[in-house]
Amino acid sequence: MQPHLSHQPCWSLPSPSVREAASMYGTAVAIFLVILVAALQGSEPPESPFPYHIPLDPEGTLELSWNVSYDQEIIHFQLQVQGPRAGVLFGMSDRGEMENADLVMLWTDGDRTYFADAWSDQKGQIHLDTHQDYQLLQAQRVSNSLSLLFKRPFVTCDPKDYVIEDDTVHLVYGILEEPFQSLEAINTSGLHTGLQQVQLLKPEVSTPAMPADVQTMDIRAPDVLIPSTETTYWCYITELPLHFPRHHIIMYEAIVTEGNEALVHHMEVFQCTNESEAFPMFNGPCDSKMKPDRLNYCRHVLAAWALGAKAFYYPEEAGVPFGGSGSSRFLRLEVHYHNPRNIQGRRDSSGIRLHYTASLRPNEAGIMELGLVYTPLMAIPPQETTFVLTGYCTDRCTQMALPKSGIRIFASQLHTHLTGRKVITVLARDGQQREVVNRDNHYSPHFQEIRMLKNAVTVHQGDVLITSCTYNTENRTMATVGGFGILEEMCVNYVHYYPKTELELCKSAVDDGFLQKYFHIVNRFGNEEVCTCPQASVPQQFASVPWNSFNRDMLKALYNYAPISVHCNKTSAVRFPGNWNLQPLPKITSAVEEPDPRCPIRQTRGPAGPFVVITTEADTE
Amino acid sequence: MQPHLSHQPCWSLPSPSVREAASMYGTAVAIFLVILVAALQGSEPPESPFPYHIPLDPEGTLELSWNVSYDQEIIHFQLQVQGPRAGVLFGMSDRGEMENADLVMLWTDGDRTYFADAWSDQKGQIHLDTHQDYQLLQAQRVSNSLSLLFKRPFVTCDPKDYVIEDDTVHLVYGILEEPFQSLEAINTSGLHTGLQQVQLLKPEVSTPAMPADVQTMDIRAPDVLIPSTETTYWCYITELPLHFPRHHIIMYEAIVTEGNEALVHHMEVFQCTNESEAFPMFNGPCDSKMKPDRLNYCRHVLAAWALGAKAFYYPEEAGVPFGGSGSSRFLRLEVHYHNPRNIQGRRDSSGIRLHYTASLRPNEAGIMELGLVYTPLMAIPPQETTFVLTGYCTDRCTQMALPKSGIRIFASQLHTHLTGRKVITVLARDGQQREVVNRDNHYSPHFQEIRMLKNAVTVHQGDVLITSCTYNTENRTMATVGGFGILEEMCVNYVHYYPKTELELCKSAVDDGFLQKYFHIVNRFGNEEVCTCPQASVPQQFASVPWNSFNRDMLKALYNYAPISVHCNKTSAVRFPGNWNLQPLPKITSAVEEPDPRCPIRQTRGPAGPFVVITTEADTE
Repeated sequence: MQPHLSHQPCWSLPSPSVREAASMYGTAVAIFLVILVAALQGSEPPESPFPYHIPLDPEGTLELSWNVSYDQEIIHFQLQVQGPRAGVLFGMSDRGEMENADLVMLWTDGDRTYFADAWSDQKGQIHLDTHQDYQLLQAQRVSNSLSLLFKRPFVTCDPKDYVIEDDTVHLVYGILEEPFQSLEAINTSGLHTGLQQVQLLKPEVSTPAMPADVQTMDIRAPDVLIPSTETTYWCYITELPLHFPRHHIIMYEAIVTEGNEALVHHMEVFQCTNESEAFPMFNGPCDSKMKPDRLNYCRHVLAAWALGAKAFYYPEEAGVPFGGSGSSRFLRLEVHYHNPRNIQGRRDSSGIRLHYTASLRPNEAGIMELGLVYTPLMAIPPQETTFVLTGYCTDRCTQMALPKSGIRIFASQLHTHLTGRKVITVLARDGQQREVVNRDNHYSPHFQEIRMLKNAVTVHQGDVLITSCTYNTENRTMATVGGFGILEEMCVNYVHYYPKTELELCKSAVDDGFLQKYFHIVNRFGNEEVCTCPQASVPQQFASVPWNSFNRDMLKALYNYAPISVHCNKTSAVRFPGNWNLQPLPKITSAVEEPDPRCPIRQTRGPAGPFVVITTEADTE
Repeated sequence: MQPHLSHQPCWSLPSPSVREAASMYGTAVAIFLVILVAALQGSEPPESPFPYHIPLDPEGTLELSWNVSYDQEIIHFQLQVQGPRAGVLFGMSDRGEMENADLVMLWTDGDRTYFADAWSDQKGQIHLDTHQDYQLLQAQRVSNSLSLLFKRPFVTCDPKDYVIEDDTVHLVYGILEEPFQSLEAINTSGLHTGLQQVQLLKPEVSTPAMPADVQTMDIRAPDVLIPSTETTYWCYITELPLHFPRHHIIMYEAIVTEGNEALVHHMEVFQCTNESEAFPMFNGPCDSKMKPDRLNYCRHVLAAWALGAKAFYYPEEAGVPFGGSGSSRFLRLEVHYHNPRNIQGRRDSSGIRLHYTASLRPNEAGIMELGLVYTPLMAIPPQETTFVLTGYCTDRCTQMALPKSGIRIFASQLHTHLTGRKVITVLARDGQQREVVNRDNHYSPHFQEIRMLKNAVTVHQGDVLITSCTYNTENRTMATVGGFGILEEMCVNYVHYYPKTELELCKSAVDDGFLQKYFHIVNRFGNEEVCTCPQASVPQQFASVPWNSFNRDMLKALYNYAPISVHCNKTSAVRFPGNWNLQPLPKITSAVEEPDPRCPIRQTRGPAGPFVVITTEADTE
């Protein structure tokens, strides 16, 4: 089955006239392009395979594989296109929109096929990039499919190009079903398009060896009939065997039912609280009215996987305790099915495979919640495009709760509800920001994976951890308050660390008394609209604020100034000793120093026009 | 005297070995550079002369000439260096600092001379640019001086390069007195350096023909002995002849005493108010205790020139009335001498030459003041790096005061006191920003010239003019309030327009009652620190605000929300009829659409290293 290369006419084109390379923009450029294409055809594809794969569209027409060279700061992409198509677009945009996107275009004018680095404007109209930063390395036909190999630097310094960072990337794609006379004739609005979220720059963490006594346990949905609706969160309760002894989970990975790769979006395994002896069995949509309320107590994350993520290995020196006395036997599996084409009748048994060992590792890994307390005191006015709320884990709390040698955070899972757009946690010491723990500038509430950190972060006694979430409430008419409800908001970073401590939760919220002063000022400037009487609830008070610019700006000013109440807790109900109210906001005098973007020295002169693609055909033997 | 070219060894170097071109960074690059330098030597200097000139340093060692091609968006620079030097640096930075500057470097390692596009980091250390956007076209030796010809696009899209716009540009320069082994060995802190402010992108406005009856009048300082201190503002009062009839000024230009080109920084001619019959004669420093207070009433700008500015031509259809009854005969000339090297004994008779005609033009040109009222109600907290205050000329005022056909603004002079850093005036119509009237993102209070607008702006009845100033009060310990004093602030745009109307002043300030509400809130959050009693003055109240983040943010929120008092005045004391207090802030829903920067397609591959300079010698015959 090893394909061998041979030069062949153009891919699925009516009039193949390929080897004459000619640009659409004149002879001078064309001569240059001939040389360029020839040079490209001569270069070898990179030797390393492509460790990462995802389907782009639910039909499986487009499949993306990639690898990352951190030395060269380059990604190699392999895009596989099924069936005869007139062309394809692939790229990246801020939040998956087809407008203002950084694109690779492959299209035909009915005669020749062209490849170009392009961009779409705010109306979806496509234009050629001044600099051609996506470099085509190979275009190969294998029976009815086309495989494109191209590369791009992380940062190109072309203002029209997306900056690839290690956070969520919203990939966009589109399929062209007909020829276009020119690139400028294409508008994304007329195409079959879609988006896929993925972390492109996976951290380079070495894989610890598995011990000889490793065992596995599959937590899987039992032959679920995937509903033919766009979004389903499926809940399934299972339990560990009776008297299952204490083990350490040291790795887990997804098991996705073959054929459903494009439908299974993300999965999580939660452990139920140990405070209840038993939990009712359940197998159905999480929003079902039949779902027992008790299952809300199954919220301790054991494993989380999202599309594109590979196996998750705990550091060699740590494992997650599981089984034995002191932890619940009940587990909840949650599977997010994403079925935008409403495919019917598909059955699924996807889930997560836990790899565990009885040879306990030197450290227990724990999870700590950073960010905001779930309280309506923290609210976002409606019609805000970028409103930031911040929660603090203060120096006083880390001083009291962390061991002298500190803790090491090695992974992180960011969490908000529907209006969350960005999340960041920064470590500060002695009043200065030192290090970003985790950051996602393209965060999506629909793509929450546990991410290994590129560099583990050591938190010492006296350090401060600052977690900020940015929200977009453009579509809301009322204030969005903090809380558990899906229409309320959260700002949380679940950090995975070792050695495990008693500190489970280190979060904050604004002081209640200062918020009441805010409502008083609102009344002073307006006409007594907010009830500051004792019987008014905070959500009611926020609901009656008239959201003019003054009241918006003043709420921001309040959150940036007023003292906070700190939750420095052993469990969600038990605080460390001391008075944690009316704490001053940590004073931070300097921000994390960010390195300047390194603009690549361009290897080739950016051609002024797109260039003609010469495909090679690989016969399958 | 026509120089003829001949190839000659390197410029003032001990060991000339020039024609072998070799880079410091290896043979491969060197081969490329040979070709490049050869190609550059072959290219012709542009045919157009250099209409603009300025001395860079007070000694006259460095002189810059330039021209602008708006079609190609390129500037050609000619830098003339006097005397034997080991090298020179020239470039641009945000506000004239030597750190974070975009630089051209010419230096020698003792053997060869190199030219490179470079940048300085925040410590002044020099680095090579990834992209070489300054292109050397010619290096020519004329007796004891060197002339460098190079060009650069306005916008390079290299993040290390300055974006050249049509506002103030802070040019920086430095002289190298010794060889350096490499570019990276150079730090700007060890060099003899300086800065010069200039508008590089002068607007392309055609020059109207002068009528046959044009006459001139010189307003000049009478043989002043320039003080040997860095900064002197010299004031000189003169008067028009008795019974001098009404004329129109149609052009003016600077007359700078030969040899003093680097010392005369800017000059203005003011007309005194007509309300006084006579003004005392005065000739001395403007800050002299001997200066009569009455001269503060000589503030109506007739002409303003600053370094690098050429003659100022009024549009063909308009002139500035001058002479005759109804205007004062008394004029004040103000000359700003900039003498940082404390040169002694220099005499000067610089001034401004007014060109005027008795054939009155169809329109009288007028000056209108936009921005903020001179009142302490508008204040800037201390220790702010970028605090913005905004003044409004409202739709109600333009509706009442402008003619039906509107007015045309053709020139603008921006004005603040010492903490001003940026000024912009935008025209809005129907709630949407439409056009920038004038903008300076690198405004300096020490460089205030009347600038012709690239495109005249028509203001209609009902339009809104919004003027915003950005201040830096990092060095202040107290709030800076609005007012006339040099340590108080202003935010003004003097717009020059025709036809002249009765509207002399269209400005605003926050409503006094709302500011008192602000002081009440400050007290509510703090501990009753601001006296809100009737006898407290606003400057006293601002002086007692504790400047925590809440009080800062809330002041911004107040200025962005509270109603305003509008000064829609015929003269500074006479308002148009109506109640102008408690006016709502104009609601603006959309900002001016800015075009994306056009990144140039690079003509040449950016070399990875600096390249060797081959000078040609021009014998003066």
